[in-house]
Amino acid sequence: MYRTHTNGELRLSHKEETVTLAGWVQKVRDKGFMIWVDLRDRYGITQLIFDEERTPAEVMQQAKNLGREFVIQIEGKVIERESKNDNMPTGDVEILVTQLTVLNEALVPPFTIEDETDGGEELRMKYRYLDIRRNPVKNSLIFRSKVTQEVRNYLSKEGFIEVETPYLIKSTPEGARDFVVPSRMNEGQFYALPQSPQTFKQLLMVGGMDKYFQIVKCFRDEDLRADRQPEFTQIDCEMAFIEQEDILNAFEGLTRHLLKEVNGVEVEKFPRMLYDDAMRLYGNDKPDIRFGMQFGELNEVAQHKDFGVFNNAELVVGIAVPGGNKYTRKEIDKLIDWVKRPQVGALGMVYCRCNEDGSFKSSVDKFYDQEDLAKWAEVTGAKPGDLICILSGNTNKVRAQLSALRMELATRLGLRDPKVFAPLWVIDFPLLELDEETGHYHAMHHPFTSPKPGQIELLDTHPGEVKANAYDLVLNGNEIGGGSIRIHDKETQAIMLKHLGFSEEEAKAQFGFLMDAFQYGAPPHGGLAFGLDRLVAILGGQETIRDFIAFPKNNAGRDVMIDAPAAIDEEQLNELHLKVEIK
Amino acid sequence: MYRTHTNGELRLSHKEETVTLAGWVQKVRDKGFMIWVDLRDRYGITQLIFDEERTPAEVMQQAKNLGREFVIQIEGKVIERESKNDNMPTGDVEILVTQLTVLNEALVPPFTIEDETDGGEELRMKYRYLDIRRNPVKNSLIFRSKVTQEVRNYLSKEGFIEVETPYLIKSTPEGARDFVVPSRMNEGQFYALPQSPQTFKQLLMVGGMDKYFQIVKCFRDEDLRADRQPEFTQIDCEMAFIEQEDILNAFEGLTRHLLKEVNGVEVEKFPRMLYDDAMRLYGNDKPDIRFGMQFGELNEVAQHKDFGVFNNAELVVGIAVPGGNKYTRKEIDKLIDWVKRPQVGALGMVYCRCNEDGSFKSSVDKFYDQEDLAKWAEVTGAKPGDLICILSGNTNKVRAQLSALRMELATRLGLRDPKVFAPLWVIDFPLLELDEETGHYHAMHHPFTSPKPGQIELLDTHPGEVKANAYDLVLNGNEIGGGSIRIHDKETQAIMLKHLGFSEEEAKAQFGFLMDAFQYGAPPHGGLAFGLDRLVAILGGQETIRDFIAFPKNNAGRDVMIDAPAAIDEEQLNELHLKVEIK
Repeated sequence: MYRTHTNGELRLSHKEETVTLAGWVQKVRDKGFMIWVDLRDRYGITQLIFDEERTPAEVMQQAKNLGREFVIQIEGKVIERESKNDNMPTGDVEILVTQLTVLNEALVPPFTIEDETDGGEELRMKYRYLDIRRNPVKNSLIFRSKVTQEVRNYLSKEGFIEVETPYLIKSTPEGARDFVVPSRMNEGQFYALPQSPQTFKQLLMVGGMDKYFQIVKCFRDEDLRADRQPEFTQIDCEMAFIEQEDILNAFEGLTRHLLKEVNGVEVEKFPRMLYDDAMRLYGNDKPDIRFGMQFGELNEVAQHKDFGVFNNAELVVGIAVPGGNKYTRKEIDKLIDWVKRPQVGALGMVYCRCNEDGSFKSSVDKFYDQEDLAKWAEVTGAKPGDLICILSGNTNKVRAQLSALRMELATRLGLRDPKVFAPLWVIDFPLLELDEETGHYHAMHHPFTSPKPGQIELLDTHPGEVKANAYDLVLNGNEIGGGSIRIHDKETQAIMLKHLGFSEEEAKAQFGFLMDAFQYGAPPHGGLAFGLDRLVAILGGQETIRDFIAFPKNNAGRDVMIDAPAAIDEEQLNELHLKVEIK
Repeated sequence: MYRTHTNGELRLSHKEETVTLAGWVQKVRDKGFMIWVDLRDRYGITQLIFDEERTPAEVMQQAKNLGREFVIQIEGKVIERESKNDNMPTGDVEILVTQLTVLNEALVPPFTIEDETDGGEELRMKYRYLDIRRNPVKNSLIFRSKVTQEVRNYLSKEGFIEVETPYLIKSTPEGARDFVVPSRMNEGQFYALPQSPQTFKQLLMVGGMDKYFQIVKCFRDEDLRADRQPEFTQIDCEMAFIEQEDILNAFEGLTRHLLKEVNGVEVEKFPRMLYDDAMRLYGNDKPDIRFGMQFGELNEVAQHKDFGVFNNAELVVGIAVPGGNKYTRKEIDKLIDWVKRPQVGALGMVYCRCNEDGSFKSSVDKFYDQEDLAKWAEVTGAKPGDLICILSGNTNKVRAQLSALRMELATRLGLRDPKVFAPLWVIDFPLLELDEETGHYHAMHHPFTSPKPGQIELLDTHPGEVKANAYDLVLNGNEIGGGSIRIHDKETQAIMLKHLGFSEEEAKAQFGFLMDAFQYGAPPHGGLAFGLDRLVAILGGQETIRDFIAFPKNNAGRDVMIDAPAAIDEEQLNELHLKVEIK
């Protein structure tokens, strides 16, 4: 047996007991006649003491040779510390060591194994197994495990069945970004890795499973943004014989359960917002409602004067920055530079100071009088002491720009407290989305999403206006889940695929099995999927997901620790009937 | 709301309530003035009654048009049945229908949705979503969900952390049978899908996670035997600071928990058997010990006479078949034919009848007298009324043949009761295994398994004799789990890889990251993985795994429902820098 206790376990009540411990050497303090060693494992740290007068000489000598991260096993007696450490649970005791075995030596680690490490991102990725020893990463992984266990407990209690769907499926044009897997046994043919188990969970509903869930890896071979991973994990759920209201209630229940069990936070009934309102009021389909700063549309009150920039704009829209009037001219200029950065892309920004005395001072005083500016303040909800920031231009662009500014300012103002949780349902998403590059419409959620009752007729005439039975769950400005009520009859599915540009033949080749299934008694059904990586990060009070993934890949999709992907040998390629051709 | 109750819920206590139900039409009995419909969902069946005198005429008419597997919603009143059905929980009531909505029509299903269906294997695979509606499949999937939830509850309670390891990893020669995944972003390079998360779980131990588990898909691109799948699920576990004894106790605990919670069976402490003994006594490293029929090695008592077949054999070995003396000559001849089938491969079989009067009658009486045969009976444990079956030849072959015969006879004798559970640890497996084709040794478990203390020196001189810290968990003649104590120092791992034929360069390229990790303070560690598909099947009292997998693949590795794998288009291949070359 390697240990009688872990390093997080011993208390004064164990005094005088002889114990065996094992773990990593966190720190050595050698005072010559006395040596203190912090011994660490997953559970905590226990202080060891080697005392010339009470520890055998050869053990004393061994202790002198210990280095950081050595793996050791000791035997000793629990004694009361002279100077107690109230900051650690084991701080009342130390172990007077009588035997020491070095289980494994260690090279000096390439970065310090401390909460605040000196290691850079790449180095920590390469030695991820050392990074995991650090509390911030270790605790994030333990936190993730707890969250998933709570998800399973809750959904199981609610009658959901966890069903594993296959990973080796078929490439579909749902996204062009499928990872494919050549089959050795089926020459020249490929499986694909699922971007989601979408069709399979629908088939489970056709199969009568009624309430399904799965915590499942999904894959997408796309250019990675800073905080995306080629493999990611979903909490995937589906229900039959339900309406949108049932789904919202079911997963609001799950989310509330998590907030309570994991964060100790009780949340009121989640507010709901129409997609159109979210775009209008926050310029964004995942608004952070922990704070206000709603958009005020100013076309009516700003387009009657001679200011051409506004007059020519599709949308003039502003926000009131609380207390923003205290910004100096220089600070405001910097803000204008900020919105003009390529990442945001605004051409400029108009502002209006709301003075404490009720007067206004804008950057366009030439065109607008106090009465005009008072209307701006009214529309944006600005109060004396605030600053109104106004952007104008193409509706979609200007909303995105002002939304970015709103989030940036809120962060600066400390309005985005990670300990505050503000969930929100955004509902009634559009069914289709215009791809501005190709001029084609594609499914905003996915091709299996049902249009709102009675709207399918609009597909031909006003495709962009058709609303879907689709909803997102937003938490603190992040989309943590999304879903829809699905189409469950062959005819509607065929119409939908036709509008998405599939020929009848393509539709049959790709989704024939699903449309066949719809003919054998498909129940009404719908569902939702949570992005687990992000959900866990947000519940954990973080915005980046990487520390919540044990072995993440970098922005080039590489695992720098194992050095993957990598070339494979000719023989393997031959067996797969493949040839690599780099142009 | 689609329903107020499920179809498994209503009892006499609901009498007179107006309810709304939804589900599939299981059966229609139309007596003209009265129509009974069995309405089915995941939870059960409820009988509906349409009565000319009490049901509106138009509803009556609708009911007449219902077909099997139509999806309907009804409203009606719970009434007491005249003739109750004690075989179903809802058998005391029926619903007098007042409203009927057809939610979806259904074509006539290609096979009957009954416990005993008329559908063949291929047809049921193609329409798996219909097969899942049948109780045997549906209940198997629900059973699987329950087992996994119990596994997670138990391991979480025991302090294990579930950590997700990556699916996009690196191809290793651990087995040549990796599925690979071309990377679009990294030209000409491939990920591989894991055959197991072996190295990652070891890195988690180096990272101090201490107790890890994961229920995880694994992939192997090999020619499929009848009951194998290219993707399969493991309960993957690893612990640090442990010895073999700790592992056996931990997972014996898990298995006992499952047997108790899932099967309601309490099992004694699991017996343990040396690998060598298992081979000697059962001819097999996964003996079914629900019954006896142990092997008796007869070389000493059968090789002193003039029977050349036995004298020239490496091993002469027999089993006593309980009550086998009642077999007719014809039945025994059939048994001899059975062992001579190519699948078994014996050249012949010697037998000896043990008569009730204590005398013997063998097929080789020419060479052996009663005294000789009495010794055979003694060695094989045969009693009056038994039949001794004897095979001879090359040790490995003859053991496999007699093991097959033993299992076949036990099945015929009804000794393999699926409701009886006989777990067994088989321990001290050989470290290496001779590949008879190539003459090379390869790792019996995997290249990370540690040899028994003090045996590493034998690697040069007697590689086949080195025993490993490796163990299998066997249940009813099936290996349900296996694992080992791992190597945790770079030097031993290097020696091991050298003996497995890796050059220093290859070892570094493939496992450099692991051997590097061993230099930074690796703790002693080991683990075990359960094959979930098989475990669930055996706990469920079945021998085949397919019904416990929602969407299995066929023996050619194909999903016949979605028709995968399939060709992908030229554009996709170009993006992956690949060309298909079929010779």
